[in-house]
Amino acid sequence: MSGVKLLGINGSPASRRVEWALKIKGVEYEFIEEDLQNKSQLLLESNPVYKKIPVLLHNGKPIAESLVIIEYIDEVFEGPCILPKDPYDRAIARFWAKFLDEKLPAVWKALWSQGEEQEEDKKEAYEVLKVLDNELKDKKFFGGDGIGFVDIAANFVGFWIGIVEEATGVVLVTSEKFPNFCAWRNKYLNCDQVKENMPSREMLLGYFKSRVQAVANGPK
Amino acid sequence: MSGVKLLGINGSPASRRVEWALKIKGVEYEFIEEDLQNKSQLLLESNPVYKKIPVLLHNGKPIAESLVIIEYIDEVFEGPCILPKDPYDRAIARFWAKFLDEKLPAVWKALWSQGEEQEEDKKEAYEVLKVLDNELKDKKFFGGDGIGFVDIAANFVGFWIGIVEEATGVVLVTSEKFPNFCAWRNKYLNCDQVKENMPSREMLLGYFKSRVQAVANGPK
Repeated sequence: MSGVKLLGINGSPASRRVEWALKIKGVEYEFIEEDLQNKSQLLLESNPVYKKIPVLLHNGKPIAESLVIIEYIDEVFEGPCILPKDPYDRAIARFWAKFLDEKLPAVWKALWSQGEEQEEDKKEAYEVLKVLDNELKDKKFFGGDGIGFVDIAANFVGFWIGIVEEATGVVLVTSEKFPNFCAWRNKYLNCDQVKENMPSREMLLGYFKSRVQAVANGPK
Repeated sequence: MSGVKLLGINGSPASRRVEWALKIKGVEYEFIEEDLQNKSQLLLESNPVYKKIPVLLHNGKPIAESLVIIEYIDEVFEGPCILPKDPYDRAIARFWAKFLDEKLPAVWKALWSQGEEQEEDKKEAYEVLKVLDNELKDKKFFGGDGIGFVDIAANFVGFWIGIVEEATGVVLVTSEKFPNFCAWRNKYLNCDQVKENMPSREMLLGYFKSRVQAVANGPK
């Protein structure tokens, strides 16, 4: 055994990022599904600062934060490179992965807020999507011709966002507004790597629909 | 010449992080002081996403985001290592540098807000400082026996915070509350590397005092 455990959640984008990296490297690992309402002692001890998933345990030593974990996996295990080899390209990939981590909460918020607040949130989300659309001009993937670090980091906008849109009825992404982004997403969703590394669409759609229902019912 | 230019601000912690990394590596560079009220065309073109300093230009190719720039400098130039060599230690250093980037705005806010809002902000700032204090238990520096990536990333809490405290009269850091953090800061401030890589204390104190005055006078 490789001595690798991953504390995660099946439907979490951050958790799936790490699983994807492990699969690219062909690393065997034990996946431990966490219950966020009742976090395990192992999670609390392994990530005392944030108490959040995902956490990778390698020979008992914990690492938190999905992007940090992916860089570690890329450095430690044999197999195809996840980050670019060239230092300049690697810096640019780190820049975009950081951008996604920082800006995704704004996109998420615009999918769930309501009324006037949502109009403001949508403006911010459109700004984020516009930047991504612009970066994808003349590019097949963020990583160039193949999927790389940034495409893995972008799994929320690639896969989850469409499902949340369907559940909430709030549509942010259209091919009129963001043609390059949509072209990327089509290629992304049809790529074997993505199909093999995403949770069930039906399961997520059911989950988000129940969340929409809970919001509509309001606090009890 | 090394072909290295840095677009920055003399008194900016993010900008100083990068200068420090360049000096550790012994890289000659041209520093270009930006005027944030009237940003140069070079800055706007080099960092179109954020339009912020610092930006490193290496042979004309731009990189933004101070931590991303430092990793690039560490990979590309000869000289002492800034990040640890061991991949696990490197992951832990990246975790803490990211923590600092994410949490410093809360500390900054607590130094400037007022009244009830400040009481709430202080609680959050204390949480951040408590986490750092705990991490520094039994450690000389974040990097172990010597200064490393995280200590460079921590230049705001190591140097700037005391100056802002003096200017605003808001004291967050005491040795009773944060003994390990204060022990680290004393060693930090007395270390040659820090003395050589920080802006003038008097200049910053004057700047922050004038800012306090501007806040007291209110909007015109």
